[in-house]
Amino acid sequence: MTTVLKLGGSVLTEKERAETVDEAALERAADALAAADDRLVVVHGGGSFGHHHAAAHGVSESAGTRDDGAIRAIHGAMTRLNAAVIEALAGVGVPAVPVHPFSGIRRSADGALDPTTAHVGTMLEEGLVPVLHGDVVAHEGAGATILSGDELVVVLAGALSADRVGVCSTTPGVYDADGNVIDRVGSFEAVAEAVGDSDATDVTGGMAGKVRALLSLDAPASVFGLGDLPAFVDGGEPGTRIE
Amino acid sequence: MTTVLKLGGSVLTEKERAETVDEAALERAADALAAADDRLVVVHGGGSFGHHHAAAHGVSESAGTRDDGAIRAIHGAMTRLNAAVIEALAGVGVPAVPVHPFSGIRRSADGALDPTTAHVGTMLEEGLVPVLHGDVVAHEGAGATILSGDELVVVLAGALSADRVGVCSTTPGVYDADGNVIDRVGSFEAVAEAVGDSDATDVTGGMAGKVRALLSLDAPASVFGLGDLPAFVDGGEPGTRIE
Repeated sequence: MTTVLKLGGSVLTEKERAETVDEAALERAADALAAADDRLVVVHGGGSFGHHHAAAHGVSESAGTRDDGAIRAIHGAMTRLNAAVIEALAGVGVPAVPVHPFSGIRRSADGALDPTTAHVGTMLEEGLVPVLHGDVVAHEGAGATILSGDELVVVLAGALSADRVGVCSTTPGVYDADGNVIDRVGSFEAVAEAVGDSDATDVTGGMAGKVRALLSLDAPASVFGLGDLPAFVDGGEPGTRIE
Repeated sequence: MTTVLKLGGSVLTEKERAETVDEAALERAADALAAADDRLVVVHGGGSFGHHHAAAHGVSESAGTRDDGAIRAIHGAMTRLNAAVIEALAGVGVPAVPVHPFSGIRRSADGALDPTTAHVGTMLEEGLVPVLHGDVVAHEGAGATILSGDELVVVLAGALSADRVGVCSTTPGVYDADGNVIDRVGSFEAVAEAVGDSDATDVTGGMAGKVRALLSLDAPASVFGLGDLPAFVDGGEPGTRIE
C-alpha cells in the first residue's frame, strides 16, 4: 500500500511570518506519521518559506525567472523548511530522506512535468520515506517556474501508482457554500462556487486547484485537517473524500 | 559548446580534516569559472565532507546501507560542501544552482545509473550553471550506495553530449611511472602500472578509476591541477589529455 501525503505549508508554518515553522504543528504531524504502516511519500508545501520569496520575485507556475539569485532564494528557503520537516520526522523514528524537486524534475516548454520518479520508487522499496516539497524547477524557454506541492502530489501519485492520497490542510475538509465540510466530491462543477482562494499569499492556487487536481487522479484522495491526520494514517477517510 | 567540469573534492577541501573547505582553493576555482564562455556543468567530489562519513558507515559504490541516519549524514555533509561551492561561485557572478543527485538519480539492481538529466540540460539552456556533487543514491535491492563525482561526470558528459570534459585534480595530470605528467593517454593498459590509489581515504577509486571512466567517453577529457584551471576554461588542453 503506497500513500502519498501532502502536508500543507500553511499547516507547518506560521504563514503570515516569513520563514517561521509552527513547531507544535510539525511535531503533531511527525507523531502521526511515526505510526504509519504504509509505504509513505511525503510532500510539503511552502507556507511562509516559499510563497513570500516567490511573490517577491514575481515567479509562479507559469511566470518564470532566469535570475539565478531568485532561483537560489526560493529554492534555499524551501530546503530550509524541508530540513526542519526531515529533522522532526527523523526525531520520532521515521526514516525520512530529503528529495528536492529542482534536482530532478523540469518542465518542458508547454509546462508539462517530466515525471522522473524512479528514484522515489526505489527509496520506497528500500524502506525510506522520501520527503519532497514545492520548489522551483527548470522550465524550458522560461527559466525556472514554481512547482507547487499540490501539483507534485498529483504527479507522484500517478507515477508511483499510489493507492491513496491525503492532503492535510488548514481546514477540516472542503467546505460547501454554507461552510460545512462536504463528505464527498465527485466533480469540480459540484463545488466550483464554494471553493474560493486561500487566505494568505499563495502563488499556487488554494482549494480550487487542489480539488481540480485531486479529481484527475486514479487513487482516492482525502482532504482533512491536522487533527484528522492520525485517522488518515490509520487507514481512515476523514474530512472530504475526492474521487 | 558544453563543458562538464569536475572539481576534485581534494582540491576544494582540506582532505585530512573533516568538513573543512580550503577557502583559498575554492576562491581560485570560482575566479577561474567566472571567466567561462561555455555552457558549464560543474561536478564536485566529496573530499573531507563525504568520504569520512561514507567510510564510517561502510558505504561505497557497491556496498549499500538502509540506515536512514547514515544516508542523511553522508548526503547532508555533501550538501553543506555544495552550498559552500554555490556561494563562492555566486559571489563572483557565476549563475550557479545546486543539483543534488540523491534527488534525481538512482541505481537499478545491477548498479547501472538512470541518467535522468533532462532537468540539467534545461538549466544549461536557460543560462544557469548546475553544480552537482558526489552523493548517496537509492540503489534497488541495496538501500543506498555512493555515486562518486567521477562516475557522475561520465554519466553527465554522455547524457548531455558534452563537447569537452575537465577534471581538476590535486595533481597536474596523470603521472607516468617516473612521476612525469603524461601528455596524452589513449588506453588504460598504457598507464595501468603507473596510476595508483589516491593519498587519503577515498571510497571512490582515485586516478585509476578516473582514467578508465574518462577513456569511455566520446568527448575528449583533460586532467589537470588547479593552476591550470584558467587555461582549461579558456579552451586549452592543459595537463593530460585522455581520449
